[in-house]
Amino acid sequence: MLIVQKFGGTSVGDLERIQNVANRVAATKKAGNDVVVVVSAMSGETNKLVAYAEHFSPNASRSDMDMLLSSGERVTASLLSIALNAMGLETVAMSGRKAGIITDSHHTKARIEKINPELMNSAIKEGKIIVVAGFQGVNENGDVTTLGRGGSDLSAVAIAGAINADLCEIYTDVSGIFTTDPRIESKAKKLDKISYDEMLELASLGAKVLQNRSVELAKKLNVNLVTRTSFSDEEGTLITKEENIMEKPLVSGIALDKNQARVSLIGVKDRPGIASDIFTKLSNSNVNIDMIIQNVGHDGKANIDFTVPVSDLNDAKMVVSKFVEDAEVDGVSYDENICKVSIVGVGMKSHTGVAAKAFATMAAENININMISTSEIKISMIIAEKYAELAVRSLHSTYELDK
Amino acid sequence: MLIVQKFGGTSVGDLERIQNVANRVAATKKAGNDVVVVVSAMSGETNKLVAYAEHFSPNASRSDMDMLLSSGERVTASLLSIALNAMGLETVAMSGRKAGIITDSHHTKARIEKINPELMNSAIKEGKIIVVAGFQGVNENGDVTTLGRGGSDLSAVAIAGAINADLCEIYTDVSGIFTTDPRIESKAKKLDKISYDEMLELASLGAKVLQNRSVELAKKLNVNLVTRTSFSDEEGTLITKEENIMEKPLVSGIALDKNQARVSLIGVKDRPGIASDIFTKLSNSNVNIDMIIQNVGHDGKANIDFTVPVSDLNDAKMVVSKFVEDAEVDGVSYDENICKVSIVGVGMKSHTGVAAKAFATMAAENININMISTSEIKISMIIAEKYAELAVRSLHSTYELDK
Repeated sequence: MLIVQKFGGTSVGDLERIQNVANRVAATKKAGNDVVVVVSAMSGETNKLVAYAEHFSPNASRSDMDMLLSSGERVTASLLSIALNAMGLETVAMSGRKAGIITDSHHTKARIEKINPELMNSAIKEGKIIVVAGFQGVNENGDVTTLGRGGSDLSAVAIAGAINADLCEIYTDVSGIFTTDPRIESKAKKLDKISYDEMLELASLGAKVLQNRSVELAKKLNVNLVTRTSFSDEEGTLITKEENIMEKPLVSGIALDKNQARVSLIGVKDRPGIASDIFTKLSNSNVNIDMIIQNVGHDGKANIDFTVPVSDLNDAKMVVSKFVEDAEVDGVSYDENICKVSIVGVGMKSHTGVAAKAFATMAAENININMISTSEIKISMIIAEKYAELAVRSLHSTYELDK
Repeated sequence: MLIVQKFGGTSVGDLERIQNVANRVAATKKAGNDVVVVVSAMSGETNKLVAYAEHFSPNASRSDMDMLLSSGERVTASLLSIALNAMGLETVAMSGRKAGIITDSHHTKARIEKINPELMNSAIKEGKIIVVAGFQGVNENGDVTTLGRGGSDLSAVAIAGAINADLCEIYTDVSGIFTTDPRIESKAKKLDKISYDEMLELASLGAKVLQNRSVELAKKLNVNLVTRTSFSDEEGTLITKEENIMEKPLVSGIALDKNQARVSLIGVKDRPGIASDIFTKLSNSNVNIDMIIQNVGHDGKANIDFTVPVSDLNDAKMVVSKFVEDAEVDGVSYDENICKVSIVGVGMKSHTGVAAKAFATMAAENININMISTSEIKISMIIAEKYAELAVRSLHSTYELDK
């Protein structure tokens, strides 16, 4: 098999851990596979460099930041190459440039535009292990760019797509994707397989093992993604296309997001386009809206409830208070003590009754549901934050995820 | 003026010192000059990375080492660019690649083959300060190379030549070139100017402010080189071509080299080519020979004395003991307790009596001269090491270098 293995900052956090990574890569190679390794900077290095830059300026030029930050991954890549050499394995260390990763020019958050895999392909043909500095590429002028948060994962997935790898393994300190957060429900089980779409729903809902950008790219490039831990040999979770999953479970996991706040607009004036006005202004202020509920009262005035990330709440307040001032909205209230519990599973597409079961579970626990939103593979409910863990555990049990 | 300023590792050793460098560069710019800055890695960084590599392997691949080590200068260059930006100055940070520095493929000790200065020239035209990562370039395949010890100085000199800079300032922790080592003779004076050839003689004899490679390159490219300190505004020493120095002093400086050992071959067999045999074998063993004296005795057998760096003495012993075994040489003795004192000055070319004065000075101090060698601008004497400081001070006074 041709395998891309990506190791994050904690996995290469010190020299001993880099040696562990080398051992794992060597074992994979000796088992008869071709291996391309993608590495992050040693944990702490990037933060150190950011602090250095901030010492001089809170808003350093983005191209300078890219030249600065891209150095950390180069260090790890060359060290891992040296470690593998010392074990008798032939390697070639590559910067993003050398690996042919071409990006746009949005410094510090560039997007990969294409990968020229010729150098990698010929190194693989020669039996060499390739060690690539993650998180970076070059734009069409040849300037170094970086890919933003989760950038090394993106590098790995994009490379896996470009060289038609059979597998792209993302090594972290977590052993895979669980049916729910094991810190909340100790009976949570690691999933063997999950579809891209389910993973996307789980990720955006709080299971922060993988950035959505990486999962989306894997889906687009049809890359078989595995998340697993670098600290043991435990098998991880395969994220793949739905067709590759034979037994589709009704529900794959329960996600919890406590980072939500509710904004309730009471008595919204009855004039055409007012909702559009409100949400356009919120969008212009970069407020991310998640769920929206509107109902119209007897007086023709509407109540509109919506949820935003807690971090966007202040911006949201600024926008809506203007509407209250202008007497277009009678009043407004905010609630940060809420959370969102979501049930995710591709099986919902073909099975009915999943939602009803969820509502019944909440009712049995006397938990009031404030808002509901559904998609083909997801049911989300807004409830009081104090019930968060209880709700997760009850739903986990209802759908027999511990079995 | 167009000025290249190079700052070594101690000058950029921490964030405060980088800020000091930024202040100096800014002042140079604001005085109406165009500035290209060349920086080394923060002191300690390169050693740290070398130690990391050695943790895995004592003989890491040279291309891996280059990828590893070149990162330190990139960090400093981007940080200095950020610091200058924060002071309101327009900058562009460049890796060796971006600065157009093309080298051969001798990784870890590459030679600069050419510089493509187009990007630098257009940035200068736009009034920008260029900050270049020193010590590095790329070979024709686009792989990163490093230039070996003193590499950042070489980068600076080569860039100064390529962009026709008026001045190339090398900032270190020493304020310039002195008539002799001030730790030996406190009356030593800083020289305002010195010729390339004098500097080359002084450097190879122990005044370790500048690597000879840099001085040779400056001479070849006709670059006006200045060594000065980054810790004060004190003027440094200009190293330039002889024609630029109006008043040529008879003697410019006294150099001392304690790192010498003498090998004495007694009774060397009288056969054609034997001296050639001996010195060819020494050369093949990478023993650097400095001075050689041969005299033929009454029996037709010769005595040959030569000096080598102390570090090469063991290799030299291996070679010559073979000749003793083969009965081609009667005996051999070694002396590590010697030193070489040298008097350097372009004025010697046109003045006689400089050597006679040196010998008279040694005689007056009862110092025995073991070996003598001379060039157009230099007289070197091998004497017992215990007289080293006395000899230096006496000669310094004889030639009135303290005046």
